[in-house]
Amino acid sequence: MKEQLNSEKLRIIPLGGLEQIGMNITAIEYGDSIVVVDCGLAFPEDDMLGIDFVIPDVTYLVENYSKVKGFVITHGHEDHIGAIPYVFKKLNVPIYSTKLTMTLIEKKLEEHDLLKAVKRKVVKYGQSINLGDFRIEFIRTNHSIQDAAALAIYSPAGIVVHTGDFKVDYTPVFGDAIDLQRFAEIGRKGVLALMCDSTNADRPGFTMSERTVGAVFDRIFAEHQSQRLIIATFASNVDRVQQIINTAAKYGRKVCLEGRSMVNVIGTAVELGYIDDSSNTLIEADDLGRYPVEKVVLVTTGSQGESMAALSRMAANIHKKVKIIPGDVIVFSSHPIPGNEKAVSNVINELSEIGAEVIFQDAHVSGHACQEDIKLIYTLVKPKYAIPVHGERRHLQAQVQLAESLGIPKENILLLHTGDVLELCDESARIIGKVPTGGILVDGLGVGDVGNIVIRDRQRLAEDGIIIVVMTLEKYSNQLLSGPDIVSRGFVYVRESEDLIEEATQTVTDAVENCLAGNITDWSRIKADVKDVLSDFVWKRTQRRPMILPIIMEASV
Amino acid sequence: MKEQLNSEKLRIIPLGGLEQIGMNITAIEYGDSIVVVDCGLAFPEDDMLGIDFVIPDVTYLVENYSKVKGFVITHGHEDHIGAIPYVFKKLNVPIYSTKLTMTLIEKKLEEHDLLKAVKRKVVKYGQSINLGDFRIEFIRTNHSIQDAAALAIYSPAGIVVHTGDFKVDYTPVFGDAIDLQRFAEIGRKGVLALMCDSTNADRPGFTMSERTVGAVFDRIFAEHQSQRLIIATFASNVDRVQQIINTAAKYGRKVCLEGRSMVNVIGTAVELGYIDDSSNTLIEADDLGRYPVEKVVLVTTGSQGESMAALSRMAANIHKKVKIIPGDVIVFSSHPIPGNEKAVSNVINELSEIGAEVIFQDAHVSGHACQEDIKLIYTLVKPKYAIPVHGERRHLQAQVQLAESLGIPKENILLLHTGDVLELCDESARIIGKVPTGGILVDGLGVGDVGNIVIRDRQRLAEDGIIIVVMTLEKYSNQLLSGPDIVSRGFVYVRESEDLIEEATQTVTDAVENCLAGNITDWSRIKADVKDVLSDFVWKRTQRRPMILPIIMEASV
Repeated sequence: MKEQLNSEKLRIIPLGGLEQIGMNITAIEYGDSIVVVDCGLAFPEDDMLGIDFVIPDVTYLVENYSKVKGFVITHGHEDHIGAIPYVFKKLNVPIYSTKLTMTLIEKKLEEHDLLKAVKRKVVKYGQSINLGDFRIEFIRTNHSIQDAAALAIYSPAGIVVHTGDFKVDYTPVFGDAIDLQRFAEIGRKGVLALMCDSTNADRPGFTMSERTVGAVFDRIFAEHQSQRLIIATFASNVDRVQQIINTAAKYGRKVCLEGRSMVNVIGTAVELGYIDDSSNTLIEADDLGRYPVEKVVLVTTGSQGESMAALSRMAANIHKKVKIIPGDVIVFSSHPIPGNEKAVSNVINELSEIGAEVIFQDAHVSGHACQEDIKLIYTLVKPKYAIPVHGERRHLQAQVQLAESLGIPKENILLLHTGDVLELCDESARIIGKVPTGGILVDGLGVGDVGNIVIRDRQRLAEDGIIIVVMTLEKYSNQLLSGPDIVSRGFVYVRESEDLIEEATQTVTDAVENCLAGNITDWSRIKADVKDVLSDFVWKRTQRRPMILPIIMEASV
Repeated sequence: MKEQLNSEKLRIIPLGGLEQIGMNITAIEYGDSIVVVDCGLAFPEDDMLGIDFVIPDVTYLVENYSKVKGFVITHGHEDHIGAIPYVFKKLNVPIYSTKLTMTLIEKKLEEHDLLKAVKRKVVKYGQSINLGDFRIEFIRTNHSIQDAAALAIYSPAGIVVHTGDFKVDYTPVFGDAIDLQRFAEIGRKGVLALMCDSTNADRPGFTMSERTVGAVFDRIFAEHQSQRLIIATFASNVDRVQQIINTAAKYGRKVCLEGRSMVNVIGTAVELGYIDDSSNTLIEADDLGRYPVEKVVLVTTGSQGESMAALSRMAANIHKKVKIIPGDVIVFSSHPIPGNEKAVSNVINELSEIGAEVIFQDAHVSGHACQEDIKLIYTLVKPKYAIPVHGERRHLQAQVQLAESLGIPKENILLLHTGDVLELCDESARIIGKVPTGGILVDGLGVGDVGNIVIRDRQRLAEDGIIIVVMTLEKYSNQLLSGPDIVSRGFVYVRESEDLIEEATQTVTDAVENCLAGNITDWSRIKADVKDVLSDFVWKRTQRRPMILPIIMEASV
């Protein structure tokens, strides 16, 4: 049908998400059609100083703009939708997703003034959409946010099943269990490749039902009937909040939401009917005063110890409305995301110091499938090729082992890197090339203006500070008009290190005068000399390596 | 006996260790006698940028130098001995400890050229020393380093038992179990106060015996007989290394130590007879080549993901001697210390990428007592007062609850802060004051020259970098001779932001010219104006807050 070489083969090109949990985006290509699955951001690594978040490089999509038929989004978490407003400044194609997901996307588009410009279509479970050579079916799954979907991507070269983020919850709080029958039916048809969530691929066993957390809440409420309860969880975990509302209603408590994102997301969920508050349990913060403390539950953000979130502000006693008092019971309905352990621990210490009781265990289950659940999906879908997605290398590797244990031949398990171009058909699968990819750093309004050099400078500045050496030279005679003066920041406390600074200034002055006396007029040479002598001096005296920045000004007299 | 008021009461003054795991040091005072228990350092918090470690402020001891009779050290971990060389530059009194502890202290003193100057005495378990009005008995305990001791501190006001860091190990790898009989005997005499390790006070149950890890090693060795084993653990965990040697000997493997601190500590332990290598299992790194890979075990540092440690260098493929190959089995015989989780995870990802198999579970037990062990010690010692030590606020608080559950009256449980002066006798216990305390930051050779201002500057520099505005003014006429020029580091990639920098320069130039035209000659006023307009401009354009540093030079023409 198509003239191009290889046009009858399917290409899968992950543009993010295979070296980290975050920045999920994958291009799936056949002939002249590309569909893109998800468009997420990543949170910065510890060494990306000052960075707010990271978005994927979509050069490949921009270069193939005419082929891109649309974005299909599996669910409404930041690592799947967060980059949309940035990417859609370069690309404008239709977006397809389930209802809650779309509502969350729309909020983002609105913030970036893109709502009117972008075509959107809400898709129901079981419904299919046609995009170029593809047909894409949305399949019901369970996850820690509602309306999560897996995708069956039908192409002339075969069917690809992409699980999205999922768990198997036979007794979900809202809606129905994952549509295992449909996974099985599609598996019966014959599936070319399965792209399956790896987040918990290194955890044995099954992921517990969200409903088990409800039982834990019941116990906690029963045991603390005379104390105020404050429960910290993820703003996007609507089902969790539903269960808190249910238990609160049972125990005659009112529920108040705290934290901007909590109020936003749960407010949206209530509007859309994803939360049932027929018991009228939710109250406004302004009405808190009307109830005794033991008759309220605060549901708050900050379960990850984020310094600006509501719980952290309460713990630090800088929250405007809520003051933690001895006897308050604080429940962390979450696990720390790796890297946040220390921040969470710090908040717990602050709460302990005030005399609050902190409950840190059992009030959370994961939203991702563990090993046995993953095996179930493989066994239903029976793919020819396994392509682990969504995870750090260790997680992907763990799924490789699972797939092997299920009898998938080693050569049919494809452990990809971001940017790999995987070409596959029924006979073969191989990586045929690489497309440009990478993380683009977002810092404030700047997108991509902070790169490696700036980050390296920040790291250096963070470690040992900066010493600035300024001097003014006469334009024609090259005579020293002023300086060299030394100014430092983040290096030593200058008032208590006057001798050191004085000696440093003398060292630099000698170096400059030596240069000038030797008729060296090349500024870069003078700067290099200043750097050398000063860094030597500083290292010997302090064993530190501050950034040294010589600035020469020129004046004519 | 003594003329001073209150001299018949005992004072307990923690100078560190009650807000963190680290920097353990406590003064115990009676009349004219002070003994100091431990002298540790703390590792820096995440926001202490560029800091190597933190040592306690010992102003109180220096001011009462003549009273200080000696330091008694419970065991050889950094958080108990690490500050000795720094503190002993200000104080020089005798040090008492068990043998391995003293050997590790001596290595530190030697590095700081203090070995000859400091009087030291090795004490055996069961032995007592007299220090002023005190007698101090060393009691055998178990911990993750050998020769750990609890202290019974006998004073005319009563007995204080300090557990040091401990666990209850009925089947230790080296030496005997904790001397529970002696704890009981002293308890029978009547104990005024128990200062007990809180590290695991929030963990239910018992801490498992170190020997259980040996059984895990046995299984791992049995299951991986054709692969190289690399086991990462703490250099100071001599018993762990002993168990690796034992299992290796059983399976016909040789053990090679990697990492400077591993070679040092284990070398010392072998010399002192704390490690039994009668099977001649240990080999030098240079002899590695003589054995097939499946016949060796590498025991290495880096179990915390420390970037410069041996395992991290192997994972990053920059280790000089060891190259990880697919099929290698890497065992983490450790848990990540809170805050290190992400670094450990990064190393595991690198190892997974190479194709190594990573075993991360079950090959570690804690060196600290859990709740049931703590209850055992309380029940043997039966103290009048409980003083939880060694922990963050959450851990201390957890021990308060344990003590309460054991029937100790609330008013006899003393939750102290660092610096509190606790005065106690049989009739009463109360906090009567506060002594100066704090963490002194050590950065390179500098001790205390980096304080809050410098750290805040580093944090700011780390976040958004620095913009420096330089200009030269004529001394008498106040005329602008040169500049203002803008130089930035860590702010934006300048080559791609030329417009921004140009506009910023124009903004600053306007501000300066305005000042000068208005006859404003006060430099601080000019600098303030520059800061204001530039930070406004930068915020509007980038939503960042770099440090802005105006520098005015003066030249006479």
